[in-house]
Amino acid sequence: MSALAQPSTESLQAIRSAFLDFVDDPFYVSELESVRYIPDGLLVLEHGRVKELGAYDALKDKYADLPVTSYPGRLIMPGFIDTHIHFSQMEMIAAYGEQLMEWLYMYVFPTEGKFKDKEYAQKIAALFLDELLKNGTTTALVFTTVFPQSADAFFEEASKRNLRMIAGKVMMDRNAPDYLVDTPDSSYQDSKALIQKWHKNGRLLYAVTPRFAVTSTDEQLEMASRLLQEFPDVYLHTHLSENVDEVQYVAKLFPESKGYLDVYDRAGLVRERSIFAHGVQLSDAEFQRLSEAKAAIAFCPTSNLFLGSGLFRLGQAKSEKHPVHVGLGTDVGAGTSFSLLVTAHVAYKVMQLQKRRLSPFEALFLATLGGARALYLEDKIGNFDPGKEADFVVLNLQSTPLMALRNPEPTAASLKELVDKVFSLIVMGDDRAIQATYVMGKLVSGTAQ
Amino acid sequence: MSALAQPSTESLQAIRSAFLDFVDDPFYVSELESVRYIPDGLLVLEHGRVKELGAYDALKDKYADLPVTSYPGRLIMPGFIDTHIHFSQMEMIAAYGEQLMEWLYMYVFPTEGKFKDKEYAQKIAALFLDELLKNGTTTALVFTTVFPQSADAFFEEASKRNLRMIAGKVMMDRNAPDYLVDTPDSSYQDSKALIQKWHKNGRLLYAVTPRFAVTSTDEQLEMASRLLQEFPDVYLHTHLSENVDEVQYVAKLFPESKGYLDVYDRAGLVRERSIFAHGVQLSDAEFQRLSEAKAAIAFCPTSNLFLGSGLFRLGQAKSEKHPVHVGLGTDVGAGTSFSLLVTAHVAYKVMQLQKRRLSPFEALFLATLGGARALYLEDKIGNFDPGKEADFVVLNLQSTPLMALRNPEPTAASLKELVDKVFSLIVMGDDRAIQATYVMGKLVSGTAQ
Repeated sequence: MSALAQPSTESLQAIRSAFLDFVDDPFYVSELESVRYIPDGLLVLEHGRVKELGAYDALKDKYADLPVTSYPGRLIMPGFIDTHIHFSQMEMIAAYGEQLMEWLYMYVFPTEGKFKDKEYAQKIAALFLDELLKNGTTTALVFTTVFPQSADAFFEEASKRNLRMIAGKVMMDRNAPDYLVDTPDSSYQDSKALIQKWHKNGRLLYAVTPRFAVTSTDEQLEMASRLLQEFPDVYLHTHLSENVDEVQYVAKLFPESKGYLDVYDRAGLVRERSIFAHGVQLSDAEFQRLSEAKAAIAFCPTSNLFLGSGLFRLGQAKSEKHPVHVGLGTDVGAGTSFSLLVTAHVAYKVMQLQKRRLSPFEALFLATLGGARALYLEDKIGNFDPGKEADFVVLNLQSTPLMALRNPEPTAASLKELVDKVFSLIVMGDDRAIQATYVMGKLVSGTAQ
Repeated sequence: MSALAQPSTESLQAIRSAFLDFVDDPFYVSELESVRYIPDGLLVLEHGRVKELGAYDALKDKYADLPVTSYPGRLIMPGFIDTHIHFSQMEMIAAYGEQLMEWLYMYVFPTEGKFKDKEYAQKIAALFLDELLKNGTTTALVFTTVFPQSADAFFEEASKRNLRMIAGKVMMDRNAPDYLVDTPDSSYQDSKALIQKWHKNGRLLYAVTPRFAVTSTDEQLEMASRLLQEFPDVYLHTHLSENVDEVQYVAKLFPESKGYLDVYDRAGLVRERSIFAHGVQLSDAEFQRLSEAKAAIAFCPTSNLFLGSGLFRLGQAKSEKHPVHVGLGTDVGAGTSFSLLVTAHVAYKVMQLQKRRLSPFEALFLATLGGARALYLEDKIGNFDPGKEADFVVLNLQSTPLMALRNPEPTAASLKELVDKVFSLIVMGDDRAIQATYVMGKLVSGTAQ
């Protein structure tokens, strides 16, 4: 055919492979209602967004003129979503021997001090985003540091790569070294300027980011609340009830509060688009309050074990009666891996220790559509519904000799076969299982087969 | 020099790098007394055994004529020792969703049935040994299956590779599918024939291997005991107190016993060279009995979390008062990785959840000299003392971009620096961190730099 005959296909592209995504939450509805699996599918994109996903046989005639990128023997999923990570802690993964509070003061704060230097922050931001993409993570909710220039550096690098990222400058005005504290007023001014510069700038979004109750005065938490009132569609991102000593410390610092969550609640910070990392020590009443407020928790299993914080009660969070939005967080650098596959693996183990089964579909839901819901981004990412931004990963279930032995046939003909194979992906997979990562339909990491 | 002038060097070889090994147990003595670290060392081998290890500067003149294999920027350690693994379960890592007893019946037994076919067993044995070596494991205590031909297959492959391996045919005469059971007499006869064929055949050693109390009658346990009496220097290898349901089941099966360990004790199976996998549910009194008997425990953290068995009380096992020999076990296929680095990482997390710190030296001791002591092989392997068999691994602390960022300088000038670096190796390292594995001084996996 001549180029003239098919002008409409210029903005189109098509990918053929097996596809897995979620259309609903497998914690609450059956696999048949929640899992969409197409063993031989065609994903058609237009201007980097999903136009259509269906069986290859059903769509091939309709798009006969379209060149197809094929990934035979691979599995394509929506890009992974990391609901809690610190870009400034990338270089200090595996800091030895402490639990939360000591670890912060001994290792984290000195490292974060380096991010006053914008050039340094920019260098790390670039490496950080490369590592995320290499691990198949296309969206993350990111702590930067107290220095606004470190947030600028992060947003600039994310913008260059056209990534759907959410981040914010850390607010912390006490209980930290002098070189790392701001003030209620400066944190307000700096955050406001960053919101005006970056929020909804391309795909970027802003999160008001008080570190945690320990390092913010009441005055600063009020400033955070003021920002949320002035900019109602920005996020709130902080830590909550990670470790027993921390919870006790917060009780001392805020004697008038009923509990840790209540500190944030009294400041008006518990609402939609509020994401709280950890929640390991939450009471049933606090889970219920999070459910009512439609706030979300980032479950960070590798971090919770690394710091000995405890076992997150995912069963409680995903209860029928008081459901709380939950996403997975790597929490690098207390978390020990950038990979959401590894994170899902450890989540499984955390649930096994609680005598509850986490199905591979539930785990992968948390890493994709569940994360998108937790971040109120379900209209933009999380699955292959038409109109969504085409961020996706190409998974190789034979990425090591051992995985190839475990999965002699890399593709699944049925949901039953698929459960087994994706479970092995979660348990045995790491960055090597991510053959390619696409952002807005564009290959940004790995290889086109 | 002419060849004539140096006849004595023909059997000699030398390796230059940084070296780390243990000369005593860091759980009981200080790092200075237990850790041997030589930042620039020379390891001299003769006929595949250690002749001498020392500072390069101190030895270079003495061995001036000897060609040197150098690994600059790398760290060499003794080969890792895996004190509990099932070669027949390699292909079924990541079997989904169950705890111990259900997992055994649903997944393990059907898989083990395939090992009746010796050719199949041989194929898997070869892959298994390749995978061990790729992960730096040079000695393992290995479950085969009930079929003596599967033990033959394993020993034959290990013999070809000249490996220091311990294995045995599984004894199980009840509570298993018909196609997997033997009888007290057949298990005795088959084991005896295998002992006569393989025990001390080259570097190979035999372990009498009743699966666990659930699948052996009293009569079979007596046969196991008889084998130990007839062949006092063979091993006893079984499972013990892994899971709460299992412990209750054993109590029902052996109502006359005081507890799970007592079942084995009454049969005369608790003694030197007895290695019990797991011990997660052991009482203080049982730890004390193991200490008195000089028996050993294989601590298998990835498996204990994968099956939700619980947190092994390493602190109790390594108490000053009643010390028990402990090695690390991957326990593939309930364990989720062949790597003893990964296993040490998860051991750290298991201890963090118990609010106890596991130092990287303690963890690496367990993976080397500690394992050798647990297996009563301290005279042959476990460190670089003169005369020991030269099985060792070359470690790369920059094996991924992330590890390279974490360790911009791959070598450590002091013990203090070394703690930090080897901890990152444990937390971030996997098979990629094993640049090369040597067996009796011969490169068998990876690359000579």
